[in-house]
Amino acid sequence: MIELYTWTTPNGEKPVIMLEECGMDYELHMVDIGANEQFSDTFTAINPNAKIPALVERSRGGYAEPVFESGAIMVYLAELKGQFLPRSSPQRAKCLSWTFFQVGNTGPMIGQYHHFNDAADERIDYAVTRYRDESVRLLGVLDQHLRTNHWLAGDYSIADMINWSWARAGMDELSSHGASKYDALADWVKRIGERPAVRRALDKLQDAKSSKG
Amino acid sequence: MIELYTWTTPNGEKPVIMLEECGMDYELHMVDIGANEQFSDTFTAINPNAKIPALVERSRGGYAEPVFESGAIMVYLAELKGQFLPRSSPQRAKCLSWTFFQVGNTGPMIGQYHHFNDAADERIDYAVTRYRDESVRLLGVLDQHLRTNHWLAGDYSIADMINWSWARAGMDELSSHGASKYDALADWVKRIGERPAVRRALDKLQDAKSSKG
Ligand SMILES: N[C@@H](CCC(=O)N[C@@H](CS)C(=O)NCC(=O)O)C(=O)O
Ligand SMILES: N[C@@H](CCC(=O)N[C@@H](CS)C(=O)NCC(=O)O)C(=O)O
Repeated sequence: MIELYTWTTPNGEKPVIMLEECGMDYELHMVDIGANEQFSDTFTAINPNAKIPALVERSRGGYAEPVFESGAIMVYLAELKGQFLPRSSPQRAKCLSWTFFQVGNTGPMIGQYHHFNDAADERIDYAVTRYRDESVRLLGVLDQHLRTNHWLAGDYSIADMINWSWARAGMDELSSHGASKYDALADWVKRIGERPAVRRALDKLQDAKSSKG
Repeated sequence: MIELYTWTTPNGEKPVIMLEECGMDYELHMVDIGANEQFSDTFTAINPNAKIPALVERSRGGYAEPVFESGAIMVYLAELKGQFLPRSSPQRAKCLSWTFFQVGNTGPMIGQYHHFNDAADERIDYAVTRYRDESVRLLGVLDQHLRTNHWLAGDYSIADMINWSWARAGMDELSSHGASKYDALADWVKRIGERPAVRRALDKLQDAKSSKG
């Protein structure tokens, strides 16, 4: 059985979307990062970096191997199911390139923009501008690619799923800063958001959060 | 033939180390990011995100598929050669977890620390402290793991290679901020730095930079 440790944030949504797209059985463990539950000993035994999401697959023998980092979880599940990640290149290389693009770029940069725009107790214009400009540029890279590609890497894949939640968050927050002109990206965000598996994933996450109390 | 577009930076070192470890033939194209060469049309046709490293493998038919993002390049080469990335889990999952850990954490965070500590024209203490503390914490996560593991994920793998250059840079710059106590990490940085393939990689990069002019 797959046990997923997660929360209702962009990084936390990705593996739930993948599990739903694959039609897999899984159990959700909600780790309230607002209440610092990511720093508990139980959780850091799974992800020593104390960040959600993380996954544990328990074997019948009781042995459990943790997988952490959303990108690693997506690749792990794709290879387990043989779905949503092409087996050979050039398609595979393209899918991996766009998957790592998300983890190394939109995640950290839109995350820093959030921090300086919404969370930091000081207002630091230099930092807000730095991360806003880089986030808008990154959304532009996605938009440019999607103008001539229906999905990021051939068929719908983990590259689309992993990029979606941060692109959606970025498009919401940065529309008045230039992102509203990214029509191809907006269309792709909408198309993915309407997929039944994606809707189920977001609903299940919200339900799990509510029933946590 | 593998053509690697890169520069003498932590992200640029990683795939050269891997190519040397695998004993592969390759051609280096030096992209001087100080002179903004990453924004040229030739290069953005390879990596639309305008960042090094990127790789192109040209087939005999002339068809070329670009691979961008250092993590994707490492996985691509590992699968091409069947080396340095275990084929099955749990070892594979562990190797992927630590590989993505680098791309999503030490890369962007130590990178932001560099920016605010050395490059930004304003001194912003809040930002310097934020990225210094997070970078030191991340180096601590690596150190903690390496206290009981000789390599990050079983045998020496792409997880070690990809983490090495940023960990080395971080240990140099952050030693007076707490990183000097990370003995297990320091030992691992030293051990990797002494590998012949790693020394060859760094030498070839420096030579290629010098002969560029
Ligand atoms: N690169 C990581 C990022 C994970 C991440 O930043 N998770 C956030 C929530 S979206 C978290 O756990 N934050 C809590 C903390 O940093 O203490 C991934 O892709 O999984
Ligand atoms: N996540 C990327 C990061 C690549 C990156 O940041 N490259 C830097 C050099 S270390 C670069 O090309 N900078 C030039 C620029 O941002 O314009 C990877 O792992 O490949």
